[in-house]
Amino acid sequence: MSKLTIGLFGFGSVGSGIYHVLKKRSIPDINIKTIVVKTPQKPRSVDSSNFSYKAEDILEDADINVVLELIDDADAAYSIVKKALNRKKHVISANKKMLATHYQELIYLAQSQRVSLLYEAAVCGSIPVLRTLEESFSHDTLTSLRAISNGTSNYVLTRLFQNPQPFEDIITDAQKHGFAESDPTLDIDGWDSKYKLILTNYHAFGVLNSPDEILNTGIRHIKPEDIEFAKDQNFTIKLIGHSKIVDDQLEAYVAPQFIPNSEAITSIHFENNAVELNADFAHQQLLQGKGAGSIPTASAVLSDVVSLLKSYTYAYTKAQYNGPHFNGDKRIKVYISSYIEEDLIPFEFDTEVLHGTQRKLHYRIGKLSLQSLKAQLELSSKEVFISVFPELNLN
Amino acid sequence: MSKLTIGLFGFGSVGSGIYHVLKKRSIPDINIKTIVVKTPQKPRSVDSSNFSYKAEDILEDADINVVLELIDDADAAYSIVKKALNRKKHVISANKKMLATHYQELIYLAQSQRVSLLYEAAVCGSIPVLRTLEESFSHDTLTSLRAISNGTSNYVLTRLFQNPQPFEDIITDAQKHGFAESDPTLDIDGWDSKYKLILTNYHAFGVLNSPDEILNTGIRHIKPEDIEFAKDQNFTIKLIGHSKIVDDQLEAYVAPQFIPNSEAITSIHFENNAVELNADFAHQQLLQGKGAGSIPTASAVLSDVVSLLKSYTYAYTKAQYNGPHFNGDKRIKVYISSYIEEDLIPFEFDTEVLHGTQRKLHYRIGKLSLQSLKAQLELSSKEVFISVFPELNLN
Repeated sequence: MSKLTIGLFGFGSVGSGIYHVLKKRSIPDINIKTIVVKTPQKPRSVDSSNFSYKAEDILEDADINVVLELIDDADAAYSIVKKALNRKKHVISANKKMLATHYQELIYLAQSQRVSLLYEAAVCGSIPVLRTLEESFSHDTLTSLRAISNGTSNYVLTRLFQNPQPFEDIITDAQKHGFAESDPTLDIDGWDSKYKLILTNYHAFGVLNSPDEILNTGIRHIKPEDIEFAKDQNFTIKLIGHSKIVDDQLEAYVAPQFIPNSEAITSIHFENNAVELNADFAHQQLLQGKGAGSIPTASAVLSDVVSLLKSYTYAYTKAQYNGPHFNGDKRIKVYISSYIEEDLIPFEFDTEVLHGTQRKLHYRIGKLSLQSLKAQLELSSKEVFISVFPELNLN
Repeated sequence: MSKLTIGLFGFGSVGSGIYHVLKKRSIPDINIKTIVVKTPQKPRSVDSSNFSYKAEDILEDADINVVLELIDDADAAYSIVKKALNRKKHVISANKKMLATHYQELIYLAQSQRVSLLYEAAVCGSIPVLRTLEESFSHDTLTSLRAISNGTSNYVLTRLFQNPQPFEDIITDAQKHGFAESDPTLDIDGWDSKYKLILTNYHAFGVLNSPDEILNTGIRHIKPEDIEFAKDQNFTIKLIGHSKIVDDQLEAYVAPQFIPNSEAITSIHFENNAVELNADFAHQQLLQGKGAGSIPTASAVLSDVVSLLKSYTYAYTKAQYNGPHFNGDKRIKVYISSYIEEDLIPFEFDTEVLHGTQRKLHYRIGKLSLQSLKAQLELSSKEVFISVFPELNLN
């Protein structure tokens, strides 16, 4: 493509970020023609004369060949992206929830319309995760992937390991400092990490998961004694989007993990993100950087925009080959804990490995299938913290 | 390009690695037709009927459209690459010394012949450094880059920080375990890191340096007391390929650096490599992985080979813009040490900041220009350890 005429939806953190980035960089052949926002009266860093308020001003403008979809509302985003692709416009999106929920449909739609659908900014902000998987490891067989992809959770866990304290205190403080949303559910319960894992798995393994088949459990019920227990054994706890090939099948879930402090991924602190890859040929790679923030996330949008000048599109090489299949029923080893011993009793392990107490906290460690854990979690209303436990110890 | 017919020069570590990798992966449209090696009688993992011994068998074969140059000898490599480009064959090389020495000429030749010259494997083995700079950060302004790009030096430094001991003991041990060459000069004196820095600087900053304008000093004269001195102040010493924009000019050198332990790059241990980038938009990124080894390095060659199917070529975007100019005369702050106090006296600082002793070791810390340091080093035959010292302390 020789000229990009851009329609931008959304002027929040990422939308205004890419606006300012493109303004500062001023790349010939790249031009934002129209910006559509929802709420006219919202105060913004740019004069209101720059904005439109009707989606049609972009979608029905035949001049515009690229749509940047950078709004929060996943349903509205879906509708915009679908219409844009149907009108043969290239789309760049940062909306992980929308993409993960309608992944197959949107990929097929883009392919059948012969336009690009790019979304580097949806996974770990500024870190070029998808591009690296596509361009550098497309013909290397990945054996595992672990992502710290949620900055809020990693910030909270880092603070807790510096100074163990009740979760409620730390999340309030994180909200005050802008590191957590007023409703932090998507972040701390692993939903955000799950959407990102779904996007990544297709590029890394050629496996296309739906959100409801992947377990996500988060850090809401972590207690100071869990941290102490981890520290006593030289572990760190990280909220991990985990994918691994076991017996030629893919196991994938989002959960806190106890990780030995000797592993490099435990050195990722505060709001930083990281992706650890293990590949047949390249062995271990660790990419780290800023996973959020207006300008860092906009930098990933920028790299997608620029790549359209070279007609870049994802090849999804891994999906072309006979790769692994998802198995939602792998057995894993988990640690569960609660101040109330009775809350742990209904949990059924295949094999109980250990149980004990850490001060007033009760814990049990055992093995069970992911499906059984998922079913039990959906039934449980208790304040039980659940974390994957490494195979290497205590059994 | 629809079909790659490959001529492979060299069957050492990387050459045999890519041979086995391509055999295992078996990609349609990619085929090694001819392998040329130098020494017929050398024992190899593959039957001798697979080998030719004359460069012409590749260079004069019109069928062959891609040359993989994976030999050690930089002069022979230069001659092969030049001939291959002149015959309009695409070239993939892992020879950092050859590339850095003839960089401008070879880039221009490839461009004028309209073929690709790719060399991801020449910088940090399996880590996709150049591709990431080209594809993800081509329109972001880099402000600094630090590379741990020599596995041997990093292995030695890691071992020394675990257990301070004389350098001679540790290098002998590293040679025994295959982590150092019998002549380790290129690695431990910073030459290898310098060639890699030169290749990286052109992609990162658009600055094309010649080897003789960049200072390199290494770890040959490091002593247990230097390690103790660093540890006492919560520093690690790493051999760093350093580039930084200061006042719109590029300063670049290879030298050991004292780095506060709080910085992520200090967590890169043993033979691992890493590149830390700081960019206007993306902020800090750290890429880490295996910098050497037959199969990991071959994985980088593989990614270059595969990219030729999509007619990939480096855009050198940074070199198209009016970027920073190299300034070889920036002032830096250095630490110099020796058991013999007199050996330190001839060193002339602009400003002396501190001097003292660590047990029987004498040290001085001061500021001077890179050019002055380079000139003094070239004259000195003394066993003086030199390391860049951070600005943040002790002044």
